[in-house]
Amino acid sequence: MKKNIAIVGATGAVGTLVKKLLEAREFPVGKIKFLASARSLGRKLEFAGEQIPVELMNPEAFKGIDIAIGSTPDEIAREFVPWAVAAGAVVVDESAAHRMLPHVPLVVPEVNSEAIAGHQGIIASPNCSTTQMVVAMKPLHDAARIRRVVVTTYQATSGAGLAGDVDLLEGSRAALDQQEWKYQAFSHPIAFNVVPQIGSFQDNGYTSEEMKMVLETRKIFADETIDVCPTCVRVPVRNCHSESIVVETESPVSVAQARSLFEAASGIRVLDEPDSGVYPMPGNCDDRDDVFVGRIRRDISRENSLAFWCVSDNLRKGAATNAVQIAERLASGDY
Amino acid sequence: MKKNIAIVGATGAVGTLVKKLLEAREFPVGKIKFLASARSLGRKLEFAGEQIPVELMNPEAFKGIDIAIGSTPDEIAREFVPWAVAAGAVVVDESAAHRMLPHVPLVVPEVNSEAIAGHQGIIASPNCSTTQMVVAMKPLHDAARIRRVVVTTYQATSGAGLAGDVDLLEGSRAALDQQEWKYQAFSHPIAFNVVPQIGSFQDNGYTSEEMKMVLETRKIFADETIDVCPTCVRVPVRNCHSESIVVETESPVSVAQARSLFEAASGIRVLDEPDSGVYPMPGNCDDRDDVFVGRIRRDISRENSLAFWCVSDNLRKGAATNAVQIAERLASGDY
Repeated sequence: MKKNIAIVGATGAVGTLVKKLLEAREFPVGKIKFLASARSLGRKLEFAGEQIPVELMNPEAFKGIDIAIGSTPDEIAREFVPWAVAAGAVVVDESAAHRMLPHVPLVVPEVNSEAIAGHQGIIASPNCSTTQMVVAMKPLHDAARIRRVVVTTYQATSGAGLAGDVDLLEGSRAALDQQEWKYQAFSHPIAFNVVPQIGSFQDNGYTSEEMKMVLETRKIFADETIDVCPTCVRVPVRNCHSESIVVETESPVSVAQARSLFEAASGIRVLDEPDSGVYPMPGNCDDRDDVFVGRIRRDISRENSLAFWCVSDNLRKGAATNAVQIAERLASGDY
Repeated sequence: MKKNIAIVGATGAVGTLVKKLLEAREFPVGKIKFLASARSLGRKLEFAGEQIPVELMNPEAFKGIDIAIGSTPDEIAREFVPWAVAAGAVVVDESAAHRMLPHVPLVVPEVNSEAIAGHQGIIASPNCSTTQMVVAMKPLHDAARIRRVVVTTYQATSGAGLAGDVDLLEGSRAALDQQEWKYQAFSHPIAFNVVPQIGSFQDNGYTSEEMKMVLETRKIFADETIDVCPTCVRVPVRNCHSESIVVETESPVSVAQARSLFEAASGIRVLDEPDSGVYPMPGNCDDRDDVFVGRIRRDISRENSLAFWCVSDNLRKGAATNAVQIAERLASGDY
């Protein structure tokens, strides 16, 4: 059963990856459309050996589309999603624009694919930092019910789009040459620095990025009693977010049990041979679809608590891969 | 009352800074000796306008020395400290070699200068990641008794000495030029990467660096009931360690109270205007003696718990400054 697909924001970093994943995963594509803003008109993108012109994102563009996958900023999503839904498409939206609306399922297939069933034309994919965390939390939560998470992130500059990558590379080169670089994507220099702000500050002293980790986690697990204390930090890494995670559970989980649970879980790969220097790092998890877990150990400060380290490609599982996996479930009816 | 001083490991990154601080802070120096291994013989170092030859570290070198400040690896400290003590000097040892010995005070002057009184010839200065954390913990602990800390670090390459800095700069340049760099100080590439290992792994799954944060904190506060869950991570930053800290206290502390306590505390500077993008970062805390604190907020996942962000120059307050402050207290009798 082939599906007609539109990729919205097709020329961006994540949109480009969505296209690549549809090809690589042999998604049953009927017709495909690449939609973008006027700036990208005139460009052609290759798909399955064919050169396809980029089209303007407008209400008419969604006619005949079954699934629209949106990799756009929030404000663009607010514009196109109603058009796509009105045209009869189901939208898989990677932006934050619709994630917390009650009638929009927020889905990570390994965690809550069953939520897809309740969709009313829009399915949201979570924020990158949330997605990898909930994949890692899932087997522990199923086994022992997670009550509280303290998470601190090391987030790559690719999370700020192509301009973020340029800033890191050019900013680093300038710093090495003792030159100046005018940053475009960041308000502080990111080369050889760490910046404890991603997004804008809320009244409670947390950033929008941090509150996504709190609120999206509860929605995905459909459990408002899970407490999360997040600190989100940008680091001078090109791609892959790393997270230091401490989870307190209702019942005890040993390190050996946790390792077995992680190993048996869908979407997780355990890299945990610390004595041999084997643990996840951006340097060994890039361009992979899995959520990598390592440094699994007992939290020595509390009973029923575990600490671990989690790395995943924020453009893949954190964005494009998760959206394509949702689209696959939609297409196959497997949810 | 001038004191005769020996700087041991005088040609290293921290030893060089100790020398600079003694001059800048107008330490009452009588005679000064620069001691190092045979490799540095023949070098001269300037102090107060005078060129002073580096001398070989041996048992005779400590004759007539009042205070020896050691900025050496553990194995060198194990060699020279007994010589210095036998010669009648008091040693301020920055290495980890003697820190946990019961008869050796482990001192951060802002926290426990009174412990200096009990010394028997050796006073230890803590690990860099511990020092900045306990300075920040002190006012909260005094006000509300800290029961548990979850800390995740972002540690600079200068913590691995001069070779660490070379590795970061040359490794970054090589990566930008798509060349290879053979790392000397690190077992994994650190350029554009984060590495969740500092030191060697213990049986409990924590690294030696992490266990220092647990054990040294308890010793400094003389409170074995303080629990710490640490995760220590190397990041591609030249200098200054950053720490994400969550502290649970026995009694409640509001954010406003915490800010006042931090502002009134010795050795702490508050940089906390998040709406204006003001918070501590390696980029704005380098080459300063203070411990910088920002992003002070309620831990939304638990009662009686606070989250904050802490940055300090690991070569200064994390090493040289703390040692010189201990020496100043010794010299003045102010403890």
